[in-house]
Amino acid sequence: MAKPAPLSPLAPARFPDLPPIAGVRLATAEAGIRYKGRTDVLMALFDPGTTVAGVFTRSKCPSAPVDWCRAALKHGTARTLVVNSGNANAFTGLKGRQAVELTAEIAAKAAGCRPEEVYLASTGVIGEPLDASKFAGVLDETAGRAAPGAFEAAAQAIMTTDTFPKGATASVDLGGVPVTIAGIAKGAGMIMPDMATMLSFVFTDAPIAAPVLQALLSKGVVDSFNAVTVDSDTSTSDTLLLFATGKAAAAPITELGDPRLKPFARALDAVLLDLAQQVARDGEGARKFVTVAVTGATSKRAARRVAMSIANSPLVKTAIAGEDANWGRVVMAVGKAGERAERDRLSIFFGDIRVAVEGARDPAYDEAATSAYMKGQEILLRVDLGLGRARDRVFTCDLTKEYVAINGDYRS
Amino acid sequence: MAKPAPLSPLAPARFPDLPPIAGVRLATAEAGIRYKGRTDVLMALFDPGTTVAGVFTRSKCPSAPVDWCRAALKHGTARTLVVNSGNANAFTGLKGRQAVELTAEIAAKAAGCRPEEVYLASTGVIGEPLDASKFAGVLDETAGRAAPGAFEAAAQAIMTTDTFPKGATASVDLGGVPVTIAGIAKGAGMIMPDMATMLSFVFTDAPIAAPVLQALLSKGVVDSFNAVTVDSDTSTSDTLLLFATGKAAAAPITELGDPRLKPFARALDAVLLDLAQQVARDGEGARKFVTVAVTGATSKRAARRVAMSIANSPLVKTAIAGEDANWGRVVMAVGKAGERAERDRLSIFFGDIRVAVEGARDPAYDEAATSAYMKGQEILLRVDLGLGRARDRVFTCDLTKEYVAINGDYRS
Repeated sequence: MAKPAPLSPLAPARFPDLPPIAGVRLATAEAGIRYKGRTDVLMALFDPGTTVAGVFTRSKCPSAPVDWCRAALKHGTARTLVVNSGNANAFTGLKGRQAVELTAEIAAKAAGCRPEEVYLASTGVIGEPLDASKFAGVLDETAGRAAPGAFEAAAQAIMTTDTFPKGATASVDLGGVPVTIAGIAKGAGMIMPDMATMLSFVFTDAPIAAPVLQALLSKGVVDSFNAVTVDSDTSTSDTLLLFATGKAAAAPITELGDPRLKPFARALDAVLLDLAQQVARDGEGARKFVTVAVTGATSKRAARRVAMSIANSPLVKTAIAGEDANWGRVVMAVGKAGERAERDRLSIFFGDIRVAVEGARDPAYDEAATSAYMKGQEILLRVDLGLGRARDRVFTCDLTKEYVAINGDYRS
Repeated sequence: MAKPAPLSPLAPARFPDLPPIAGVRLATAEAGIRYKGRTDVLMALFDPGTTVAGVFTRSKCPSAPVDWCRAALKHGTARTLVVNSGNANAFTGLKGRQAVELTAEIAAKAAGCRPEEVYLASTGVIGEPLDASKFAGVLDETAGRAAPGAFEAAAQAIMTTDTFPKGATASVDLGGVPVTIAGIAKGAGMIMPDMATMLSFVFTDAPIAAPVLQALLSKGVVDSFNAVTVDSDTSTSDTLLLFATGKAAAAPITELGDPRLKPFARALDAVLLDLAQQVARDGEGARKFVTVAVTGATSKRAARRVAMSIANSPLVKTAIAGEDANWGRVVMAVGKAGERAERDRLSIFFGDIRVAVEGARDPAYDEAATSAYMKGQEILLRVDLGLGRARDRVFTCDLTKEYVAINGDYRS
């Protein structure tokens, strides 16, 4: 394990105040799975009636816990969530499946529920067998300590190479009844849709049926977690779970057409976006948070592909790390995206500064102003394709020597 | 301009002996386009009757010289080639086209030919207008000095961040008549099919009609230049040109079915592969040459996609830089490729050492032997998908802090 990286300069000043969610109790523990002297297990307990939705990695080689959660989701209800850091239990073959089954059994006993109401996630090293027997004594004791709130400790327990815990919250009026959403997430490398490589768990006291919850989550992920890339690599373990306890005093929502859903969906989207952006802000070695916006496209899909091509280009990302407004490399990345592009209609902006227009450097280009802009921590890179009216944006970070250092000796 | 990087540890001991090609004369010059105190122009003159074939970047925003060559290829004959380093004349709008036209005019005058018999290539910074008037005095004088041979000087004149000049040659029997192939290339960043970002010029005295030459080249590039990736970035300027002077005393080849072509194609493929591998060996910051082989696939196309996913993964490449046989990241890259994969059928080898089998770590895995292997400069990473009989391989290099350093201040 490399020594912990210093706090990302893009970290928020502090962890936000996340209110307790009625029906959700949390506890963390030290199971000694890999790390010493820090928590590495998060256990969440949910009151009966809690519904659940999930979105997972699109990797063709998903981890054993992802397989488990996908199967469990068919039941649509959840009573407990167990997350460990330090070992991803991915590519561990039969042993991995056995570890998942044993963990679910231990967790179900601790939570007093059936195994199919247990949700599991693991993050850390891939390919090392996870010794699930380590959970045996731990989960009983942990469940006993579970209490409302404590989101910051929960966010800390699931960190791997993250340099700060990530949380976000929103309150929303559900047809006259106030409901709350609170979520946590971890990154920080192997981050690329779909999903962004990460774990995120979001909780609400709103009473929403599982199929409706799933529709909201599947839609919400598109412009949040699936719009974030750190290094173009996709984890085998990406997991985003949304739990709804239904403890708020509102009538249950069972239809997607329910008018009360609109503000709720907006609030959920904001929480997901906030968490996803924090993942990019904590990208391994990141020193700059980069928004790549593409306008003037013929479709949102085309805009997304061009934006991702730019956001994943090592040459664009190293240039930004070097505080170099190297728009030539942006052109390169537009060109390689495979979407329609007309060189002579392209405009490129860094912040408000137009550096290129109509296929060439902007005649009014001001090197000094651009250099000053590039020294900032928040970089907006905008490309106008000049072809249509569709647009999209994605979020990433720069590519620094620290990324290579962190990943060059992660396992050693 | 960053200061020159030290010689790649993967460089060959010396530039190979490239014999002169009958009908080809070369000269280099210092035009002062960007660099000082080094040659930055290559001029090749071809005897009348020289045929030509070309393969170019698939970027949707190709450089002005690429547009020019594509148009010229319709004529199928070549009398001169002018290459400059230091400025790619890419994304330079109307000025870029004007610069190309002016350069072709100057070159045609110097070579005594029509402009459409002039081939042009430029490499270096993108987006800066190229001052073609700098060629005005230079090309006349350069053409006057052109002489057979001198391939090493030619390869040096087209270098940008390359740390060594690249050349390769082969001799072959063309129906009883000896013919020769000689080629040069430059890399070294922004290297990803299709094409690998690079310039390469290959010359032969074989008498081959342009359409046949084009078929050979288009096929030959698939497993050579298009099987190389340094950083997944695709240049706007990739250009591979093959010139055949027809000076060898053999009857002209006008049909692809000509039985004399088989050994010639094999020799051409070998030259292209040698050059392409040298490009990967000189990838920016490279310290290890990596062959990624995928076997057991259901099709060559699937094997190529999986191999490229591995070869382009920043996490795999940084692990190799860190001499870490991190096969978990290999699984990740297999999973994200989008091709069919069954976790429990995967085997992964570093060199001859099987590190993973049937979805888990090889029970006989020997950490010490693997670590020793990873310290080498030549790494073979093989994945067997266990699904079929198709295979493919691609070439890349590791991702080091030096890559970030080189690209973080290239323009400054």
